Amino acid sequence: MPLSLAAQVEALAPQLIAWRRDFHRHPEQGWTEFRTASRVAESLDALGYQVAVGDAVVDREARLGVPDAATLADALARARDQGGVTRWLAAMEGGLTGVVGTLDTGRPGPTLAYRFDLDALPILESEAGTHRPARLGFRSCHPGSMHACAHDGHTALGLGLAHLLPALASRLTGRIKLLFQPAEEGVRGAGAMAEAGVVDDVDHFIATHLGLGQPEGTLICGADGFLATTKLDVTFTGRAAHAGGEPEKGRNALLAAAQAVQALHAIAPHAAGASRLNVGRLEAGSGRNVIADTAFMQLETRGSTTAINDYVEGRAREVLAGAARMQGVELAIARLGAAVECASSPALVERIATALEGRAGIRELITHDTTPAGSEDATLLMRRVIERGGEAAYLIFGTRLAAGHHHPEFDFDEATLAPTLEALASIALALAGEAADADGRELAE
Amino acid sequence: MPLSLAAQVEALAPQLIAWRRDFHRHPEQGWTEFRTASRVAESLDALGYQVAVGDAVVDREARLGVPDAATLADALARARDQGGVTRWLAAMEGGLTGVVGTLDTGRPGPTLAYRFDLDALPILESEAGTHRPARLGFRSCHPGSMHACAHDGHTALGLGLAHLLPALASRLTGRIKLLFQPAEEGVRGAGAMAEAGVVDDVDHFIATHLGLGQPEGTLICGADGFLATTKLDVTFTGRAAHAGGEPEKGRNALLAAAQAVQALHAIAPHAAGASRLNVGRLEAGSGRNVIADTAFMQLETRGSTTAINDYVEGRAREVLAGAARMQGVELAIARLGAAVECASSPALVERIATALEGRAGIRELITHDTTPAGSEDATLLMRRVIERGGEAAYLIFGTRLAAGHHHPEFDFDEATLAPTLEALASIALALAGEAADADGRELAE
Amino acid sequence: MPLSLAAQVEALAPQLIAWRRDFHRHPEQGWTEFRTASRVAESLDALGYQVAVGDAVVDREARLGVPDAATLADALARARDQGGVTRWLAAMEGGLTGVVGTLDTGRPGPTLAYRFDLDALPILESEAGTHRPARLGFRSCHPGSMHACAHDGHTALGLGLAHLLPALASRLTGRIKLLFQPAEEGVRGAGAMAEAGVVDDVDHFIATHLGLGQPEGTLICGADGFLATTKLDVTFTGRAAHAGGEPEKGRNALLAAAQAVQALHAIAPHAAGASRLNVGRLEAGSGRNVIADTAFMQLETRGSTTAINDYVEGRAREVLAGAARMQGVELAIARLGAAVECASSPALVERIATALEGRAGIRELITHDTTPAGSEDATLLMRRVIERGGEAAYLIFGTRLAAGHHHPEFDFDEATLAPTLEALASIALALAGEAADADGRELAE
Amino acid sequence: MPLSLAAQVEALAPQLIAWRRDFHRHPEQGWTEFRTASRVAESLDALGYQVAVGDAVVDREARLGVPDAATLADALARARDQGGVTRWLAAMEGGLTGVVGTLDTGRPGPTLAYRFDLDALPILESEAGTHRPARLGFRSCHPGSMHACAHDGHTALGLGLAHLLPALASRLTGRIKLLFQPAEEGVRGAGAMAEAGVVDDVDHFIATHLGLGQPEGTLICGADGFLATTKLDVTFTGRAAHAGGEPEKGRNALLAAAQAVQALHAIAPHAAGASRLNVGRLEAGSGRNVIADTAFMQLETRGSTTAINDYVEGRAREVLAGAARMQGVELAIARLGAAVECASSPALVERIATALEGRAGIRELITHDTTPAGSEDATLLMRRVIERGGEAAYLIFGTRLAAGHHHPEFDFDEATLAPTLEALASIALALAGEAADADGRELAE
Repeated sequence: MPLSLAAQVEALAPQLIAWRRDFHRHPEQGWTEFRTASRVAESLDALGYQVAVGDAVVDREARLGVPDAATLADALARARDQGGVTRWLAAMEGGLTGVVGTLDTGRPGPTLAYRFDLDALPILESEAGTHRPARLGFRSCHPGSMHACAHDGHTALGLGLAHLLPALASRLTGRIKLLFQPAEEGVRGAGAMAEAGVVDDVDHFIATHLGLGQPEGTLICGADGFLATTKLDVTFTGRAAHAGGEPEKGRNALLAAAQAVQALHAIAPHAAGASRLNVGRLEAGSGRNVIADTAFMQLETRGSTTAINDYVEGRAREVLAGAARMQGVELAIARLGAAVECASSPALVERIATALEGRAGIRELITHDTTPAGSEDATLLMRRVIERGGEAAYLIFGTRLAAGHHHPEFDFDEATLAPTLEALASIALALAGEAADADGRELAE
Repeated sequence: MPLSLAAQVEALAPQLIAWRRDFHRHPEQGWTEFRTASRVAESLDALGYQVAVGDAVVDREARLGVPDAATLADALARARDQGGVTRWLAAMEGGLTGVVGTLDTGRPGPTLAYRFDLDALPILESEAGTHRPARLGFRSCHPGSMHACAHDGHTALGLGLAHLLPALASRLTGRIKLLFQPAEEGVRGAGAMAEAGVVDDVDHFIATHLGLGQPEGTLICGADGFLATTKLDVTFTGRAAHAGGEPEKGRNALLAAAQAVQALHAIAPHAAGASRLNVGRLEAGSGRNVIADTAFMQLETRGSTTAINDYVEGRAREVLAGAARMQGVELAIARLGAAVECASSPALVERIATALEGRAGIRELITHDTTPAGSEDATLLMRRVIERGGEAAYLIFGTRLAAGHHHPEFDFDEATLAPTLEALASIALALAGEAADADGRELAE
Repeated sequence: MPLSLAAQVEALAPQLIAWRRDFHRHPEQGWTEFRTASRVAESLDALGYQVAVGDAVVDREARLGVPDAATLADALARARDQGGVTRWLAAMEGGLTGVVGTLDTGRPGPTLAYRFDLDALPILESEAGTHRPARLGFRSCHPGSMHACAHDGHTALGLGLAHLLPALASRLTGRIKLLFQPAEEGVRGAGAMAEAGVVDDVDHFIATHLGLGQPEGTLICGADGFLATTKLDVTFTGRAAHAGGEPEKGRNALLAAAQAVQALHAIAPHAAGASRLNVGRLEAGSGRNVIADTAFMQLETRGSTTAINDYVEGRAREVLAGAARMQGVELAIARLGAAVECASSPALVERIATALEGRAGIRELITHDTTPAGSEDATLLMRRVIERGGEAAYLIFGTRLAAGHHHPEFDFDEATLAPTLEALASIALALAGEAADADGRELAE
Repeated sequence: MPLSLAAQVEALAPQLIAWRRDFHRHPEQGWTEFRTASRVAESLDALGYQVAVGDAVVDREARLGVPDAATLADALARARDQGGVTRWLAAMEGGLTGVVGTLDTGRPGPTLAYRFDLDALPILESEAGTHRPARLGFRSCHPGSMHACAHDGHTALGLGLAHLLPALASRLTGRIKLLFQPAEEGVRGAGAMAEAGVVDDVDHFIATHLGLGQPEGTLICGADGFLATTKLDVTFTGRAAHAGGEPEKGRNALLAAAQAVQALHAIAPHAAGASRLNVGRLEAGSGRNVIADTAFMQLETRGSTTAINDYVEGRAREVLAGAARMQGVELAIARLGAAVECASSPALVERIATALEGRAGIRELITHDTTPAGSEDATLLMRRVIERGGEAAYLIFGTRLAAGHHHPEFDFDEATLAPTLEALASIALALAGEAADADGRELAE
């Protein structure tokens, strides 16, 4: 055995950090990850992976929350200027920014897939000297966009895994697919990759996240607490009228929205578990003395199960229709994002836990955790795998954070990247039947 | 000329008071005026009027707010016991308690109609010694029913006029119709008499009311301030569920009602004039720990014009439908009453004013008054007359009140009855072309 | 050993049923259990228990949801007529209807308490021939009151246990207290007994319930799913005004209530667990055309923990104060009932489970069950015991039900009474250190 | 008599139009009328008026709706670049953009004041070829600001009158004050000039407006229909929280706003006349998944009398305080504008009507018109004059409009300027006791 996995990872560690900082410096929001995705595709191709992009991996119609054409075009042009790889960009035009790289070991065996998310958030990154990316010069070069949820790290891990696997190929079986997904923020992208069928041949599916409140050294192998969710944008359109002169001629969209807000927040809870609804934004009306002819709301529903979320969304749609009827205004609802509950497969979680227990960097290993947290659209890929007979697991690797997720000073400890990469690679070895001990745990000692 | 009108009225004055006290003692609420109506019919018949009752004068289907069958039957039985006149009662069964008496002078001329209302209110009359009806022994014998809006006086005036007219017949022309209307309270009855066509041959129509805040000696000849109105009973029917155990299974009628109440009260005002909406009663739910499956509301809309009231009612129906949709509950709306705006015919008002100015008991004569007050369903008869080319006027005769209308100690000054009767009769003479001065004004001096 | 426990229970079984039917026939609602409590006191006294009633066992001021004086007086008079025992009634006057009987074994040892609830529900019992109490002649003789939650059975079990214990005294240690509690319905009574200190000397506390959805043969030893709850009656008092004539003079209590209802139902959920709020009743206003000057609401809050319920109640009080402020109306809040979460002591539950496992009539034994159900004010006594260093457990004995709890045809299988009694007595023996096997389990085989 | 008034006006007519177009091309919004006001001051000074600006004519603290310091500074700099007159600008710094010019005739007599408003609206002016200002090249040079309410015309009329009066001085008496008022839009400016005492010595006060829906040739001498109004900006400040993860920690400002909106629109109407309330703008929250910590609303109240508007504003403040209390959020209310009802003095209106009847360009003269229209803060100056014993009148001169007031294609018929100016000057003559006929009416024939 030429080089142990640990040694390979150690060799790759500086590169991991370099990738992460490059992505951090060039954040691209959902469906505009042209630079990131094209560079990932270029790397995978160079490493010998079979690479698929564009319509082959993203169902165009199933995408949610796609920006307008001008935004997409601007982002594409910007990516061309900043190192995006031209030969991949054409297929991604219009926001088809998913990438799948497949490594065929040539030996029979199940198909294993890993999923990494690519996109950044609409946040203006801190310039404070206390903020490491600012201090070290890899702060976002795109004001208003920021990797504040560690997806830069996830993408770097994906690239790192892509570099490791060919060297490990002789110890692996079946096929390994690396999925790079756009638009996780707002849970907009995974559904479109699922619809494109990219996991339809997958037997074992692994999704992963850094941080999420877990301390460094903690690994959750089955993070089952993600809430099913739906993101809705709602527009009421009424009729303006002078509020003093002819109030009866108006159709008050602001009033419809106000009534909807109250009734939405008053949707009854569900006996089977937690439910949530939030109208987080409301913008209505044009001027003080004009009856408002338009109101726009951004809301989300959540449930500890998909059924509960469906119940809340269904009730929300009734309420919205009723509010529109009350005021005689038009109603338009756009579905901007969706994710389901998370149910890691117990058997797969068990195998992963067995493979990783006691490894370097893992001080506490939790099999299943159901603390309700936010939502994650990898759950849609997990469900697709499980519905077709496969198994799926969602892993959370704890790390030290400078500030919470989605904060302008968010930063994670880059020292977490190497052990996380090693753990991800170890899973592939373990699932290929190799005794984990042979490579990982002992070396870690 | 055998006896002047004034002398005749003077002779009749004690009887007017006796009638009024008899009706006061036997109050009958809307559509149950069996005793009152049958006795009126009997008197009219005895006086030689052509009398019509029942379906001939009340459109059965057009009645609003009719009590249930048991209530009607109980009231009918009670009337039989208390002096109702049997031969008229059969035709009134089920609540057809209108009466029309017609006097044909045999001479050509227009048809003149007077309208008097018969019904009492659901009020428990005061037993206080300070309350004259109690002190003098003509307090209501039906606890919970009371003549607290002077309709007892109106009916007495109608009977008085019926007695006067035959003696004046030689000085009159055309035909004179005396309308005795049920169910004015809640504006429920006039529409059904209008639909029955009782005013379709009427050229001049006179409605009248005692009191209404006017001081003694004031006469308003054109009371135009009545608000158009609609009375609605609303029921939301949802689905009960244990609020702790399975809240998601409920369909919350109480919440629908609460949302409707707010949106109803927030209906925009109208540039063209005053509008009103009131939800005056709300009763919902069965128990603290049960999601309410039923909610019942009593509401009314008003407008200074019929168009404004229609606007408010239309918007209210939209709001109610929307609230039901919001909560997924059933909605039932019953129309319990309706009246339109009041527009006395200027020419008729002018003739009446000319005829009555300076008469005994009239210290201040106002032609048109538009102060918004309550509502009155005589307006439906007025509109019918005017739409068919006739003229109509609504008169208010001021009087001293012991307490406000609809108060348990309401009482009016019976001394007002005689001059009011004389004025009403004088109108008939004046419209017949006789110089008013010839009989009234001079004698009054 | 003269008679085995099982044999004693068997001998007592017909009496158990007779007691239950007598109580069923004479249901008394919360704080009016004069007949029931006085007869219980008389029995306990006759059996040699030290008996305490009235102020000694009920903190007068801590009572919640006490009926008005007339209701209390009527119930007391009725109890006198129907077999209430006069010498105990004086102390219970005004609704102090708790009873505590204490048996001192004379041997050192911990104090064990059992709690039984006495009160009936405001339900009109079915007269249907299919309803066994109706068919067999022990249907409620008080229309509108009914034992529809098995408290009649609980009281019978308490009397049965009172009869058994003296004969078992030689096998017991310490003191045993039998608590008979008024007004469990609406969670109104336990707090007042807790405040009176009746469990301040208790080391082991047992509360119990029949049915609650558990099938016959199932025993839950630690029913931990009861929700903390608060019952509030809310009154808004505004100012009436004619809705057409002077709407600006009103202070609309109905509108305040409608606004409160919506905001109450919109109180945000809690991350730590389930919360509930229900406005189950709303009654407002006097007439359609009057701005409502009064509104009355019955509501309840719940939480899977006491902290969550406190959060919801706190928010509800803010909302109510704000709604009153919005409309300029007065607000009065009455606390009608309260209970806390249920946390059976694991060690005690374990001892009980060990003692009862495999006994006659117990097919499935569950130690802890956390399914959220309704609420129970025995939790207040449990908390008091635990806070002072004792242990507590809530037991549910499954049984066949004719209809659900609080249903007009509710009835339980009286055959469950005997094994339940035997189990309750066995616990006393087991806690006294006697091997359960010696008496119970073998005989059961 | 050297030149008749009509001839002087005719000579001035082209200049009137030139001034109007210059102001139209350089629109300045409320409190930033630096260029306009300084040029007016310069002209008045050149014509021999005693000129007062800055703190002398605007009470700094009484100003409402003043823009922020940066906006004021930018506007001042811009005015310097575009022909503002430096020597007046210093006193106007920070938005003290009122001007008062006083002409003392040297003869005893009452003081007459005219008021003209200076400011433009926040409207992007149309570029359409059909829009005359665009076609003729005097479209606004400040995108987003536009004279769409004829104040450019009013200012031109004020300058025109300033030019005429000295020549007429020998025919006038007392003192004549020309008030140029900032920030009429949003009814923000008049109160501050009133507070500065600029009308405290005024016996006759004239305010005027072009258009307002009146056809060309119509003159309303007493426009009494302006509604009293108050403009409020409302901010609720709560506490953000993750809507999925810790909803109970939030303080929902958006929900408070929604509840306030409903209750505000549900404020009861007033028996004494028309009332209005409109929440025309609502902006709340930051993101879909965050409980909104801020909500901002722009609202206005109106009433056909000041008392009614005060009632509505008072109720609105109660509602807002209650909504804040409901959700536990902070409330801040800023008063952005205010005006009172309009009550032209009958005697003054009569004198004006007499003076102007039959004049050139006046086809229909209406003394008092009470049609409810918008609001006008000149009413605050009128009230001040009247309260101190003077008389006031509001005149509307009809004109042809290309589009309604506040419309991006608003334009009026400049041919109306000359006759309007002549009428305004005639009033001064008439009030000075000169027979109107002597100069105006005959020449007009």
